[in-house]
Amino acid sequence: MEKGKLLYEGKAKRIYTTNDDSLVWIEYKDDATAFNGEKKASISGKGRLNNEISSLLFEKLTEQKIENHFVKKLSETEQLVKKTKIIPLEVVVRNIAAGSLAKRLGLEEGTSLKRTIIEFYYKNDELGDPLLNQEHIEIMELASNDQLEQMKEIALKVNDSLVDYFNSCNVRLIDFKLEFGLDNDGVLILSDEVSPDTCRLWDKDTNEKFDKDVFRRDIGNLTDAYEEILKRLGGTELCIK
Amino acid sequence: MEKGKLLYEGKAKRIYTTNDDSLVWIEYKDDATAFNGEKKASISGKGRLNNEISSLLFEKLTEQKIENHFVKKLSETEQLVKKTKIIPLEVVVRNIAAGSLAKRLGLEEGTSLKRTIIEFYYKNDELGDPLLNQEHIEIMELASNDQLEQMKEIALKVNDSLVDYFNSCNVRLIDFKLEFGLDNDGVLILSDEVSPDTCRLWDKDTNEKFDKDVFRRDIGNLTDAYEEILKRLGGTELCIK
Repeated sequence: MEKGKLLYEGKAKRIYTTNDDSLVWIEYKDDATAFNGEKKASISGKGRLNNEISSLLFEKLTEQKIENHFVKKLSETEQLVKKTKIIPLEVVVRNIAAGSLAKRLGLEEGTSLKRTIIEFYYKNDELGDPLLNQEHIEIMELASNDQLEQMKEIALKVNDSLVDYFNSCNVRLIDFKLEFGLDNDGVLILSDEVSPDTCRLWDKDTNEKFDKDVFRRDIGNLTDAYEEILKRLGGTELCIK
Repeated sequence: MEKGKLLYEGKAKRIYTTNDDSLVWIEYKDDATAFNGEKKASISGKGRLNNEISSLLFEKLTEQKIENHFVKKLSETEQLVKKTKIIPLEVVVRNIAAGSLAKRLGLEEGTSLKRTIIEFYYKNDELGDPLLNQEHIEIMELASNDQLEQMKEIALKVNDSLVDYFNSCNVRLIDFKLEFGLDNDGVLILSDEVSPDTCRLWDKDTNEKFDKDVFRRDIGNLTDAYEEILKRLGGTELCIK
């Protein structure tokens, strides 16, 4: 597989073409951003950690028959994935109130929700990634109703799978963000990444945070937190039960 | 009918008990507020205009068999209405992009929407009346799914009726906010007010604004604008076709 030209550079990743039109080469960057890019830093080792963790989690989802773009890990910071046309929606799954949901609904962070809920945000930096309802998505033609139903169904399956997996590693999956894309055949599959950049992960006993809130809120060392997740997931040692 | 003690004072109205437990006495105030109370003013005549217009529009909706809380106008600034327990949701119906929708979706104000849409906002000043999706409403137990469906259905009927009515008076109904409540028998009915405080109303030919945006954006005299609406609705003269 050959790495070709830079297709796109995002806040956390660079995407390159390959000699196979159905595949792209992803490079995880060390850049950390929060609050729609207002807070920025370069954190040595972050790219490696997200790549390792995301690779591990995508492999887990593949085992669970959840179709996703992951093909294989290429290096410490690189992945080979299926090329997808990203649907411009951030699909957020929430088990416990935290972050913007806690603020929106006036709930204390850590409050268990009556049931898992799904939110759709418009993936649009200029607009600040606003929350959308299904009618907004329809009039903006961001996804069909059928695609919305598929995304919800897959998102809940991902949640079931990851809640169990993290639970076995003494971690609570609070919430997470997914992105979906259409592959070259027009099939909707899970795309982007699944990492402590896109999930809220709390220690099951102490509620210590092992995710991007460590950076957002300046409450510790981000690489230590991500390293702990990788360790618990068995990336460098056996999973601590 | 006797006016009793003050039950509740809101930003635009005072509500009093009456000697009939199923009815309350509403007094429209001259206070104008915007941006969740950040901008305030007292505008002489506003209470009268909103009471007159809201009475007229509720009568129109009653004619169209849309159940609502309005019983009768009591004076220039007062109405007798059915007592309702308000559902803490603002139900917003939009035909054309304006205000927060234009901002949220990055649409130019005045853009026609592909179809009429409905949004639900949490009626909660402390939280800044945030947009909610149906799953938020469910976990917060703000309304049942059945009530949501009823509110949507009634809101669309109100829209059909008011679009036609305003259209015949050379006014475009851009969007509006409704509130619903449960009467003493637990029946869900349209409540609150329907006025230039809660509707965006533009001249059909010139797009001149005859609603609260005149106050929000300091683009003219609010009572002149509301007076024009009352006049066009036939409140003081025949409707100008």
